[in-house]
Formats: sequence, structure tokens, C-alpha cells
Amino acid sequence: MLDYLQEQTALINQQLEAVLPRSITAEWVDAVLGRSTYSVDDKTLTAALSNPVWDFLDRGGKRWRPSLMLTCCEAVCGSVEPARPLVPLIELIHNGTLVHDDLEDNSDLRRGKPCLHKSFGVDIATNVGSAMYFIPLVILYGRRAHYSDAQCLYIYDLVAQELVRCHCGQAIDIAWHNGQRDDITEDEYLQMCAYKTGVLARLAARLGAYVGGATSQQVEELGRFGETIGVAFQIQDDILNLVGERFAEGKGRGEDIHEGKRTLLVLHALSHTSPSQAARLREILAAHPTEQQVLDEAISIIAACGSIDYARRKAVSLVERSWAKVATLVQESDAKERLRAFADFVVQRDL
Amino acid sequence: MLDYLQEQTALINQQLEAVLPRSITAEWVDAVLGRSTYSVDDKTLTAALSNPVWDFLDRGGKRWRPSLMLTCCEAVCGSVEPARPLVPLIELIHNGTLVHDDLEDNSDLRRGKPCLHKSFGVDIATNVGSAMYFIPLVILYGRRAHYSDAQCLYIYDLVAQELVRCHCGQAIDIAWHNGQRDDITEDEYLQMCAYKTGVLARLAARLGAYVGGATSQQVEELGRFGETIGVAFQIQDDILNLVGERFAEGKGRGEDIHEGKRTLLVLHALSHTSPSQAARLREILAAHPTEQQVLDEAISIIAACGSIDYARRKAVSLVERSWAKVATLVQESDAKERLRAFADFVVQRDL
Repeated sequence: MLDYLQEQTALINQQLEAVLPRSITAEWVDAVLGRSTYSVDDKTLTAALSNPVWDFLDRGGKRWRPSLMLTCCEAVCGSVEPARPLVPLIELIHNGTLVHDDLEDNSDLRRGKPCLHKSFGVDIATNVGSAMYFIPLVILYGRRAHYSDAQCLYIYDLVAQELVRCHCGQAIDIAWHNGQRDDITEDEYLQMCAYKTGVLARLAARLGAYVGGATSQQVEELGRFGETIGVAFQIQDDILNLVGERFAEGKGRGEDIHEGKRTLLVLHALSHTSPSQAARLREILAAHPTEQQVLDEAISIIAACGSIDYARRKAVSLVERSWAKVATLVQESDAKERLRAFADFVVQRDL
Repeated sequence: MLDYLQEQTALINQQLEAVLPRSITAEWVDAVLGRSTYSVDDKTLTAALSNPVWDFLDRGGKRWRPSLMLTCCEAVCGSVEPARPLVPLIELIHNGTLVHDDLEDNSDLRRGKPCLHKSFGVDIATNVGSAMYFIPLVILYGRRAHYSDAQCLYIYDLVAQELVRCHCGQAIDIAWHNGQRDDITEDEYLQMCAYKTGVLARLAARLGAYVGGATSQQVEELGRFGETIGVAFQIQDDILNLVGERFAEGKGRGEDIHEGKRTLLVLHALSHTSPSQAARLREILAAHPTEQQVLDEAISIIAACGSIDYARRKAVSLVERSWAKVATLVQESDAKERLRAFADFVVQRDL
């Protein structure tokens, strides 16, 4: 799976550059911003827009969401080509959410380098994060003959609604780890993940299937599959945050505890450990500690009552249930095998 | 003009509540977010989304952009009704940009109260600002029979491109007041304003005209008119920031100087005052001073070489030139008189 993702990366980066070049040119300004009334300072746009965006994109990332989109398209029509123009839409929106996420969490590092609000400032990071939501829409409003009007409208509709969902998920997550509720249910947690992390994979899967000419049932179930692997990816992220062996993204072990996040692991532990241990865990989460010893104490409480195994099993079972439906709707093919591999990848990855 | 705006406010607020109610309900979740897979914590959405948005909206604001949209619609078809459903789109996007703007400038106060990132935190403000860009799109993707598919597509196209332009304008503005260029031309400044401040008025005017059934020439020229009064509004804002008598928005006199902003006034002063005064002005702008005495010294330099009068005349002449074209394209009516009054309002307002 990682090999496949690596293969795709160069091509994906090329398409990203077509939508937002490393140096802004007068041609880009005309094509993306339209006719200007006065005079555009394109050099400053390079400095304040392209440079920070590419500084962020060049840090890598697995680019698995656009690959999921291409694979869904291939699974329904035998070719990735119909979905290819949409690659920047998925990848730029995803990276925009990461830029804002880092700012919201006041994180220090992302992929081994200072977060954008640390290296370019809060002003640039706030602006660039949102800009990444809109710039790739030029694929639609620029109408480069990729899609029919009906397709463009459908794509706008999906993108708009998923972005609303995404911001609602983020709102709930922020409120929760600021400790606004102490009785979150597992279903509420999963829905928050579906909104926050599932939407982009869901969008990727639905778009890929749709432009590949899928039936509406296929679009729906592949979308559900995308959402589910997004949720499973988040659960795995939460697990790795506590017991991962490598912290390649520059995060330390237990950062989620420091942030007070109510992850599936925490919710399970709070209702399965002893009342005194649960009280201690609540106390640690509320204190936003930075000492590794205290973070590790919380991790021990969580691990001791089986919450890590529980979360692993939950991620696997969600993915299996969703896959079972997809399996009946998609013909056997390499692409179908790869879809299956996506599911395994997100729940088995250790990075 | 202010009376007309005040009359509209109650109705505009009603429509804003229809798109984002003060309390999130299960019905809202279904209609706006669609079917959920697990279970939505709507109470937390009220706390982390509705409350901050309404805290901000309830501070008032003149709501002149939606009123401009309604008036453009009325000017071409005799009725405001076709444009009415789009009111929340214009007003929420505008307020979203203000929330982000305050965060980017690290401002303290907005409309007499702490900025959202001060009262609700950077995390909530970042998220809510972007959420306000997307939530009103439910008017389109929810398809409540307001507009045809072709109209929805046209509206999406306009909104998407204007939002890209808006973020490009903001990028340029940030880079400039971080001192990245010292040879900005007047036309570059006006274009930055057209992007940053003109886009929403341009969007408002074009949307109002379009759904009113305007010709494409009318849409274009009313859009230009909207952009121009947006630019003139910004110039007047810059003037009031230095020599206004009332600082109702909680801003102190000369805050733009403190932020190092290259406004039209500053650009004019730098090229019309003596070399020594220009050097001193540059020095003050680079130092981001907070002492009122130093800010006032910069204001004196700007005023002494006629830059304030120049900016006033520039705003008036831009608006007059744009109005001359609109005047030939729109039939005489109350709405046309009101459009003319909009233009006068933005260049004459003292608040």
C-alpha cells in the first residue's frame, strides 16, 4: 500500500502545482482570479500564498485521500482518469484543515517542522488555511472542460456540505477537549470523528465514484466506506498517540492527553476503570499537564482496563462491516483489491 | 440611508437565524448536515458554533452588503424578493472574514466587545470564521426551490471565485503590513482593496442583479459598482482610522499605523512629503508603536502633505466614474436612487 501511495505522489504533486504554482504568474492570476480592475502584485502573492502552502505540502503526507478517490473511480469504471482533475480539491482542502487544526490546537510541529502559524505567523496561517479550501474550486468555476454543468453542480453540492460537516465536527471536538461535557457517548464520539476526519475520505470516495459513473447506491456505499476508514484512521491515530513507537509528525507521546481530548480510548477507560482511577484520569485531562510522567500515568490507566485493545477491535469491526457492503457492489478487479488494502492500511499502520 | 439600513436589519436577522439558528436542533442537523451515521451532539454545536456566531452577529454592523444586493435586484426587476434567500450568504461570509481578520491582526475589540478569539479562544474563532463561509451554502445545496440548477451553479461559481480573490487580497495585505515591500503602487493598493474589501460588495451586487434577471452587462457593471464602493469604503475606513471623531468599533486612533498598514494615505504621503519626513514615517510604520504620541506624529506627517484630502477625492472620483456607467444601464426608480445613496453613504460616513 505504501508503495502504491509513493508511486502516486509525484503525479499528485504535479496536479497540485497546476492549481497553485510555486510562483504566481500573470497567467495564473487571469485564470484563477479573473480580470483585475487595477494591478495585481503577483510577487507578493508568491510570498504570502504559494510559499507557505508549498512549505506545508512539501513536508509530505501520505496523500492517501486522493489515492482513495482515484481508486474508487477505477473500481467503478476501470480508469482513474475521470477523477484525476479533482485530486487538488481533496488534497488542498485536507491540508487546509491541517493548517487550521494546528493553529486551533496551538501545536508546535507538523511533519517534523514548525507548524505554519509558528513559522509564517498566525495571520498567514489563518488566511492560507482557508485559501486552500477555495483555490482548488477553480477546477469547477474555471470550467476547463473536465466536467459537465450537472457534474460541476453535484461536486459543488458535495464539497459545500462536507465542509459544513467538517467544521461542525471541529466545533464539537474543540468544545469537548475544553471539557464542556463529561458524559460523551461512544456514538457521539464516532459521529464527531465522522464529521471531523471522515468527511474528506467520504468526499474523496463519493467524488471518485460519481465521476466514474457509479450508481447512486455505489456512490452512497463507497462514501460510507470512505467515512468509515476516516473514522478508523482517527481511532488508529488516537491509539498511536498513546502507544505508538514512532512520532514522526513531531508529536510527543500522549499529546492528546495534554490537550484533554476525549478520544474513544478515554471514553472507554472512563467507563471501564475503577471510580478512583476514572477520577484521576479526569483530573489529568482537566489539568492539561506537560510532564511526561503524568501523561504516562494517564496512558497506564487507559491501557490497564483494556481500552487500547477495545479501540483496535472497534476500528477493525467498523471497517469490516462497511467493507462487506462495498464488496457486494463492486466487481472484482485490481482496484477493488486496492480498496480492500486501504482499509487494512488505516487500521494496521504504525505511523 | 442609515434609516433604510435600520429598517432592513430585523428582516435580515430573521433570515440569518433560519440558516443558523441560535439553538441547533435535530431538524437543523438533518437539513444542513444530512443524515448522520452515529449520533450528533447538537447541544455542543449550539455552544461551540451558534453561540460564538450569534455573539458576533448581535453586535450589529450596518448590514449594508445584503441591502446593496437587495437594492441591485430591485433596480433591475422592481422587486427584492428574488435576492432575499441569498441575504445570509453575503452577511455570514462577510462576518466570517471579520472574525478571521481580527485573529490575523490580533485585534482586541470589535464593535465595542472583545474579538471572538479573545472571548471564545483562537480555536473557536478560527473554526467559526471558516464555518461562516460554508454554512450559508445550504441555501444552494439544500435546494429549497429558490433557484434553478443553472442559477445555483452560477451562484456557486461567483461565490467560489470571489472567496479566492478575497483570500488573495488578504494575503497581499498581510505581507505588505509586515513590511515586505516598500514600493507599492497606487494601482496595486487599489487592487488589494478590490480583492480584500471590494469582493463582497461586488458579489452582493452581481448576485442581486443576476437573480433579478439582469443582462450580463448590467451584472458586470453593477458588480464593478459594488467593487468600487467596497474600495471607497476601505479608503474611507483608512481615513477614519486616522482622523475619525468616533471610534465606535473599539479601535483607537491610528491603529493602522501601529499595524504598519500601507494604506492609500500612507502611500501618497511617502511619495509627497519630504525625504526626511518619509524616512520618519517609514521608521514609525516598521516599529509597530503603541504610544499615542508616536501614532499622532505619523498622522501629522500624513495630514500635512495633503494625503487625507487626496484619499477623499480619490474615493469620490472612483465612485463617480463607476456610477456614471451604472446610471445609463438602470431605469429610473426608487431603487436606483437608493443605489446612488449607497455610493454617497460610503464616502460620506463618519462611523
